[in-house]
Amino acid sequence: MKDKPLVSLISAGLSKFGKLEGLYAREIFAEAAKEAYERCPKLDPKKDIKALYVGHMGESYEHQGHTGATMADWAGLLHIPATRTEAACASSGAALRTALQAVLSGLSDVVMVGGVEKMTHRSTADVTEYLAMASDFPFEQWQGMTFPGLYALMATAHMHEYGTTEKDMATVAVKNHYHGSLNPKAHMQKEITLETAMTSRVVAWPLKLYDCSLITDGASCLILTKPELASKFTDTPVHIVGSGQASDTIGLYERESLTSLAAAKLAAKQAYEMADMKPEDINIAEVHDCFTIAEIIAYEDLGFCKAGEGGKLAEEGETRLGGRIPVNTSGGLKSKGHPVGATGTAQAYEIFLQLTGQAERRQVKDAEIGLTHNVGGSGATATVHIYRRG
Amino acid sequence: MKDKPLVSLISAGLSKFGKLEGLYAREIFAEAAKEAYERCPKLDPKKDIKALYVGHMGESYEHQGHTGATMADWAGLLHIPATRTEAACASSGAALRTALQAVLSGLSDVVMVGGVEKMTHRSTADVTEYLAMASDFPFEQWQGMTFPGLYALMATAHMHEYGTTEKDMATVAVKNHYHGSLNPKAHMQKEITLETAMTSRVVAWPLKLYDCSLITDGASCLILTKPELASKFTDTPVHIVGSGQASDTIGLYERESLTSLAAAKLAAKQAYEMADMKPEDINIAEVHDCFTIAEIIAYEDLGFCKAGEGGKLAEEGETRLGGRIPVNTSGGLKSKGHPVGATGTAQAYEIFLQLTGQAERRQVKDAEIGLTHNVGGSGATATVHIYRRG
Repeated sequence: MKDKPLVSLISAGLSKFGKLEGLYAREIFAEAAKEAYERCPKLDPKKDIKALYVGHMGESYEHQGHTGATMADWAGLLHIPATRTEAACASSGAALRTALQAVLSGLSDVVMVGGVEKMTHRSTADVTEYLAMASDFPFEQWQGMTFPGLYALMATAHMHEYGTTEKDMATVAVKNHYHGSLNPKAHMQKEITLETAMTSRVVAWPLKLYDCSLITDGASCLILTKPELASKFTDTPVHIVGSGQASDTIGLYERESLTSLAAAKLAAKQAYEMADMKPEDINIAEVHDCFTIAEIIAYEDLGFCKAGEGGKLAEEGETRLGGRIPVNTSGGLKSKGHPVGATGTAQAYEIFLQLTGQAERRQVKDAEIGLTHNVGGSGATATVHIYRRG
Repeated sequence: MKDKPLVSLISAGLSKFGKLEGLYAREIFAEAAKEAYERCPKLDPKKDIKALYVGHMGESYEHQGHTGATMADWAGLLHIPATRTEAACASSGAALRTALQAVLSGLSDVVMVGGVEKMTHRSTADVTEYLAMASDFPFEQWQGMTFPGLYALMATAHMHEYGTTEKDMATVAVKNHYHGSLNPKAHMQKEITLETAMTSRVVAWPLKLYDCSLITDGASCLILTKPELASKFTDTPVHIVGSGQASDTIGLYERESLTSLAAAKLAAKQAYEMADMKPEDINIAEVHDCFTIAEIIAYEDLGFCKAGEGGKLAEEGETRLGGRIPVNTSGGLKSKGHPVGATGTAQAYEIFLQLTGQAERRQVKDAEIGLTHNVGGSGATATVHIYRRG
């Protein structure tokens, strides 16, 4: 384990996740920013924060692009450099990587990074269409392919190759709904049974309703600084000790494997090497469970188990609160919700709470090392970050 | 003038700008990348380039988001970290700032940055609607405001406050069309007369057809590295010695001034301070002439003349080839064209050609210091970069 962190998180904020009627994305982002400011009273946002990066996937939802500048203004940060990043559902994972580089570059000592999406005012058909823009237009969208279909292809390949079952996937859903029931900011705070999940209606076989993440409104943010400045703002920072990002073909049809994401494996490798850590060092993780099969594949890509054993890991309860490595204690995209642009930094928010002992009913005792895994589209982008309690 | 550059440009590429029928954005970007690779034979792109940042404004044109990963693959860079940045028409100016930070951060030694937009396959009405997403939805778009209208408000305010005339604006158009006529990659390679410009049809008074930039397809890219590594790749690098970025309210209606862009002034101040230079040190500039009035305001915001004297500067021929400070020798957005996401790094491409003596018929003799000024929307984002011949 390396001693020197890359950067330090000094605060974090999250809006309520859910169906936030009557609000614009900018108002939701302001709610997340307010929490981050209140958590860190020694920070003078207007004076201290020198740049903003905002993950935002779709300008179509609100017919509003130019999100960086808009969010800067609504977070009380008028005139600072503000840039939107987009990498599909990994938009704010990519923003975090970008913000981290901004701090390391020496150009900005204190940087805010976050993400936002307002989705629920649109019909499910509209949302499905907008989300599909993260896949390949000529050979996927144009053929009528949407994301449940793409992940269903991965699921059937995984079932075929490794014997993964529909029950394995449903187990992930049950776990994440249990975790979400303990998170007062989660979109769906209700437990479900295995039977509810298994008998829910088929969206794209083998994926059923409860295998799919939620269409949600929400925003998240973090405040980063140089490790040597962290103590100026807080006594309980969380350090980022590893960062990885990688890309892959936009089209699933061009990949060498359907049962693993090369970009996620590469990003994880970079992050582990940078942190000088192994998968066994990780105490808790937030992974990109846009569909339950994606969480199973994430276990394998991140090295929490061997290839093909992700379903078993879930079945054995190892990734449930109380297990060896609790995954998605926030409820994950499945139960906390998936406001796509906000997801990457919302994952980091959960790790921040956990490593600073503020996760209340879902607190993992003595958690010291955390990991986030954020995936864009069907895996053309992945970011992995590793965190250490300060 | 500071000795130590921030980063060094070792190559640059630009696709043909124009109506590129039958091509996807990814193919246009590949054309720009190919030129950058061919200009720098000592570079092994697949081995050397460690990250990609792509400015891309609109997912609506091709129903295609997730542009970072897509362009990485089509530029032969599969698996590297690849992120799209969006800041309206300053998307690749913001990408350049982001890429520069990636190099300075120490995480990536050699970084590619570029921009791309495919627009001409859409109707003018569609394009106008998509561009409008860079303005405020609730108080501008919703009221029917589009960009010619927003810049017309700035133009009338400038006329009212300073006596700027329609002829001043037309003079900018004539100059940029002259410059564009010397650029084989420009969209419109034809000279126009003052009369043609003055009598062209009104789009949003006082802005007429020839006061407006073009709807264009195109892509641009740059390759950056640490100054100490530049000599490994080229004998003629161009150094970036100053970088500034700032933001403002998304809505024009909230600004303190309609005759100046606060974000551009702030970005310029940062860039000049970082470079330890003054406006008088600049030999050539590429500025954001989305409308002719924007170029006049740019002269003033960048300190090339006093506030209110931009029209006079144009009339006196000081910014024409052969003048004191030639501006938009490429033809600018007005004549070279404005594929929005590509514009910021296309400006840097022109400066790269000029400072390495490769600008052929439009070469400015002995140019040593260049500047780029890239504006998003009606001024909610601005980036300014300063370059020095290596």
